[in-house]
Amino acid sequence: MGAVLPDLPIGPVLEVAGVFVGSMSGALAAVRKQFDVFGVLVLAWAAGLGGGVLRDLLIGAVPPVGISDVRLMAAALAGGLVMYFGHPRLERARRFIIVLDAGALALFSVVGTVKGLEYGTTALAAVVVGVLTGVGGGMLRDLLTGEVPVVLHQRELYAVPALLGSAATVGLWHLGWAGAVGLTAVAAGIFALRLVALRFRLTAPGPWRGGRSSGSR
Amino acid sequence: MGAVLPDLPIGPVLEVAGVFVGSMSGALAAVRKQFDVFGVLVLAWAAGLGGGVLRDLLIGAVPPVGISDVRLMAAALAGGLVMYFGHPRLERARRFIIVLDAGALALFSVVGTVKGLEYGTTALAAVVVGVLTGVGGGMLRDLLTGEVPVVLHQRELYAVPALLGSAATVGLWHLGWAGAVGLTAVAAGIFALRLVALRFRLTAPGPWRGGRSSGSR
Amino acid sequence: MGAVLPDLPIGPVLEVAGVFVGSMSGALAAVRKQFDVFGVLVLAWAAGLGGGVLRDLLIGAVPPVGISDVRLMAAALAGGLVMYFGHPRLERARRFIIVLDAGALALFSVVGTVKGLEYGTTALAAVVVGVLTGVGGGMLRDLLTGEVPVVLHQRELYAVPALLGSAATVGLWHLGWAGAVGLTAVAAGIFALRLVALRFRLTAPGPWRGGRSSGSR
Repeated sequence: MGAVLPDLPIGPVLEVAGVFVGSMSGALAAVRKQFDVFGVLVLAWAAGLGGGVLRDLLIGAVPPVGISDVRLMAAALAGGLVMYFGHPRLERARRFIIVLDAGALALFSVVGTVKGLEYGTTALAAVVVGVLTGVGGGMLRDLLTGEVPVVLHQRELYAVPALLGSAATVGLWHLGWAGAVGLTAVAAGIFALRLVALRFRLTAPGPWRGGRSSGSR
Repeated sequence: MGAVLPDLPIGPVLEVAGVFVGSMSGALAAVRKQFDVFGVLVLAWAAGLGGGVLRDLLIGAVPPVGISDVRLMAAALAGGLVMYFGHPRLERARRFIIVLDAGALALFSVVGTVKGLEYGTTALAAVVVGVLTGVGGGMLRDLLTGEVPVVLHQRELYAVPALLGSAATVGLWHLGWAGAVGLTAVAAGIFALRLVALRFRLTAPGPWRGGRSSGSR
Repeated sequence: MGAVLPDLPIGPVLEVAGVFVGSMSGALAAVRKQFDVFGVLVLAWAAGLGGGVLRDLLIGAVPPVGISDVRLMAAALAGGLVMYFGHPRLERARRFIIVLDAGALALFSVVGTVKGLEYGTTALAAVVVGVLTGVGGGMLRDLLTGEVPVVLHQRELYAVPALLGSAATVGLWHLGWAGAVGLTAVAAGIFALRLVALRFRLTAPGPWRGGRSSGSR
């Protein structure tokens, strides 16, 4: 596959950075569960590359880059090792990691959508695999550590920015505007929306109560 | 793929109905877990279309219809929204939903088996993907909500009717009788067997106790 | 696919034996969770053939042999039935099963790596799918019974012998030495390393404590 965004020289660099950050979230979850070092590295891989692996399986791009690309695998293992050795300090940098994670979400969603379109999927499927590229790694991380995927119940908008961004990417693609500038703008928009959601605690609504207040949880 | 049962005009309608009902079971599970509205819709998708997605991955039909077919996705989202807004009332219609779910199980098993055969699988693989189409969505729903898949331990026959129906479908196919009448009869048989199992509490045996009574659980 | 190790006449026999043993571990987990007989057989299938199914999905070998090969499916169902009826006695043979499981791990890792290479994967991807063939069935077994995969936190070396063996297999392949003798030697090495790890309780390190002793868990 090589670069998904060939006219965006910064793309591959950001993709590696996204995998690195995602893998740190997986390694941290594994450390908290007292996994051994092998388990920590598997979780780093799952969180950093799992979303892309699910995308590639769904669009038929096998073997997925998440198991065959040396550069991406190295980024995931590096993220895992950094967190394995650095977790006593990195726990305190949690806020910084959340910001980086928002960047990874933005980038993965755009890259994933474009790859789907390049493989000739329908617009609908491209949006699905775009969002899945963004949120799938975290879901796999949660399932492998015995947790319900946080993206499904956390309320603070996480998948919604990815969804809007993937839809915007499909729109740009069909307008012929899916170049470096357009895609970068979409990624920046996802990133900004995620940060705004964090800052102002914008939440998706919980279960509908038939018009009454949803009360406290 | 379009219509899997091209000579069965009622097929596509029933397939959409099956997805709609399946997605309601996923949305209900999500509402009970206090998922947000995004989580409710993901669970609706997983329960309504997850079985077909697993089938399509296994037979190489990518991208799966469960992420690319607008009609089926709309049915899953509609089922999710109906349950999201209607759950206070629909909980009371539980018996009605169970009957509809039996219909979905019957239809999915037959449709899934036929699609496997159309993709040139062995008879054995066609039965596996047929059953998986029927029960896979519910398994995915349970895994994503942190539960052990109910189909594996519920005792009341659920997968067994699907298994018998998938095997019967393969038999009809090899006899050249897999037309509208034959397939409808198989689906009706699965449906009836599931309802009989519910009505008379027919159960699969639990762990073998070495000839002694299995006692109470 | 037929035989993956065509010049190793004992290969297919060992593969069936590996599936049989793996499936017993799945069936035992299901019996302990009070699954019904259908659930026991599904878990037998998942533990015995799940690793190979994941491998085949990742390399595009669909439908996977784990759902289409009558011989392998029969081995998994046989292992499941033996454990379903024999579990009161077989629980006491736990040590024997662990040794057999080490043999299955060794064989699956080598066979899985070779199959990846035959499908033209990169060396890296071949190692990943080789290890996954060895440990994936057990992971699937644990996820379906609501447990965190034991391979991720058990400490006693399990995946590491598979990893070393898969890497050695790739090395032999590129040297042109991946014949019966070489591959058998690698499998024997994985088997021996796993038994040594069990006998002497060789463990992978848990979370890093910043240079201090990791203490008790």
